Amino acid sequence: MLADVQKSLEVFKEKAIDRVYFVGCGGSSSLMYASKYVLDRESETIDSDLYSSNEFVHRNPQKLNEKSLVISCSHFGKTPETVEATRFAREKGAITVSLTFDAESPLAQVSEHVIVYEDGRDAKYLNEAQSVMLELVFGLLAIKEGNEKFSELLSSLENLDQILVREKAKFLASAKEFAQSYKDEKVIYTMASGANYGIAYWFAICLLMEMQWIHSHALHAGEYFHGPFEVLDKDVPVIQLLGLDETRPLEERSLEFTQKYGERLVVLDAKEFDLTGVAESVKGYIAPLVLQAILRQYAEQLAEIRNHPLSTRRYMWKVPY
Amino acid sequence: MLADVQKSLEVFKEKAIDRVYFVGCGGSSSLMYASKYVLDRESETIDSDLYSSNEFVHRNPQKLNEKSLVISCSHFGKTPETVEATRFAREKGAITVSLTFDAESPLAQVSEHVIVYEDGRDAKYLNEAQSVMLELVFGLLAIKEGNEKFSELLSSLENLDQILVREKAKFLASAKEFAQSYKDEKVIYTMASGANYGIAYWFAICLLMEMQWIHSHALHAGEYFHGPFEVLDKDVPVIQLLGLDETRPLEERSLEFTQKYGERLVVLDAKEFDLTGVAESVKGYIAPLVLQAILRQYAEQLAEIRNHPLSTRRYMWKVPY
Repeated sequence: MLADVQKSLEVFKEKAIDRVYFVGCGGSSSLMYASKYVLDRESETIDSDLYSSNEFVHRNPQKLNEKSLVISCSHFGKTPETVEATRFAREKGAITVSLTFDAESPLAQVSEHVIVYEDGRDAKYLNEAQSVMLELVFGLLAIKEGNEKFSELLSSLENLDQILVREKAKFLASAKEFAQSYKDEKVIYTMASGANYGIAYWFAICLLMEMQWIHSHALHAGEYFHGPFEVLDKDVPVIQLLGLDETRPLEERSLEFTQKYGERLVVLDAKEFDLTGVAESVKGYIAPLVLQAILRQYAEQLAEIRNHPLSTRRYMWKVPY
Repeated sequence: MLADVQKSLEVFKEKAIDRVYFVGCGGSSSLMYASKYVLDRESETIDSDLYSSNEFVHRNPQKLNEKSLVISCSHFGKTPETVEATRFAREKGAITVSLTFDAESPLAQVSEHVIVYEDGRDAKYLNEAQSVMLELVFGLLAIKEGNEKFSELLSSLENLDQILVREKAKFLASAKEFAQSYKDEKVIYTMASGANYGIAYWFAICLLMEMQWIHSHALHAGEYFHGPFEVLDKDVPVIQLLGLDETRPLEERSLEFTQKYGERLVVLDAKEFDLTGVAESVKGYIAPLVLQAILRQYAEQLAEIRNHPLSTRRYMWKVPY
């Protein structure tokens, strides 16, 4: 575990905390959904909400105070809305913990506590942003409520590097098939529920819309039957995720329908992953991390076959907004 | 105010309540977003979460107990996931209040407290589902925290019938123009933030996807700049809502960008509505209700010009799912 994470946990020991605000934008927000799911499932005393950074500042929740833990994240630490949200929260007396890759960034300056996470080829998965998020919430639960899953979480995350290398290799061919088959699509939906919804959201807005300029929308597998499913026909592409958490029945039900009435269905099912080394007690919370790593390859292959690099932008970092 | 609402408020006086779960599906879920916004902004003691009914049952939040108020809604009272969610919540000892149009429905049977709301041509707007939602949360806030906005809310809602007749007439021509101009579009985004987001969501999944089979996605005006906006070009249709709540700056910022780089922009701005009779203290919370009524006409006109009635379904109520 990173020393920065340990330091944050020491702070949690010292302070009364009755709620967590998960604050970020885009991809950095999406990696927090699984942690919100954890707190909903596990916590007896700690409430939580998840907001886009600027929404958080303007909504200005009444209950934001010195017992609030505000966890924010921005990779380069420069996302203005997230820097401002952290500054704002700190001014209100909240305990601010910010995750970033850049220790010298504006976010690192403005936050009371900073966790510099790892990223890239040499990163240990345990020390990447999405793992740090789970360590923070399970550490918080252990400290405040005696929740016993923390050590199993850590050992599971430690085993992920190997698991991911293997599973990514296993699914590379599927990623290439996907790219070949879907390269000309103008609209591709994603769908999930529970702990996995953040991954469906991430893929829809960051990979498809932002990085491939393909229309998308992360459907919630439960909401599906109350509107969205009417749009399905044999030509409508849907990427369906199935995880290992308590809401899997929702994903299974939506899968069954989409298999019946659609013909452009891509399925990523965590049951097909060999997750030996991931403890049963946290499998549902960790499945989204594995789904994300596998899915990332789908985007990489799509980018390659479409000759539209994932780094291409027309507005982001290029024009004022 | 409906007698059923008054009865629920009497129950709130008797019981300790520390959180609200807003539980519903599709359109019935969408009408609860503004109330979640109210509690976030106003409440010092009451937490809240909003879930699709089946997500709520399976996520099974740890904190669901006898101090939880679970507000659910289903128009015909037959939505199986919502009936089950209410039964489930009641079994856990929660205080269940269900909104429905049908007093004899399964939902009405299973819920401890029932509010039969009005709907249709002769309905007073005060007694419709979305108004009842606001009455419940402001009533709860008045009872538990001495929040003083309840009477201004009621009088504002009472004035809405007249306001809506006038504003709907004023914007009918715009609705027809919209239908004429957008009838052949395959994808139409909606966008909003804060109290209005539920309306953007409703229009996307219920009107466009469910009732017109047009691809859609309710963009959050803050998240826009962290992925979705990259998909914008001169051909991409966006329906932008602007409300009167604290998050309006997010909507204004996203509008400015979309006006600059897009050419298929439809704007509904609550500042253009004459809301005389709506108190300043609750204007931001009521604006979404007016936006929704105006927007509904846009869908009606679209349905007419496309010869695709809003009542047409291929799956909903027709096939098993």
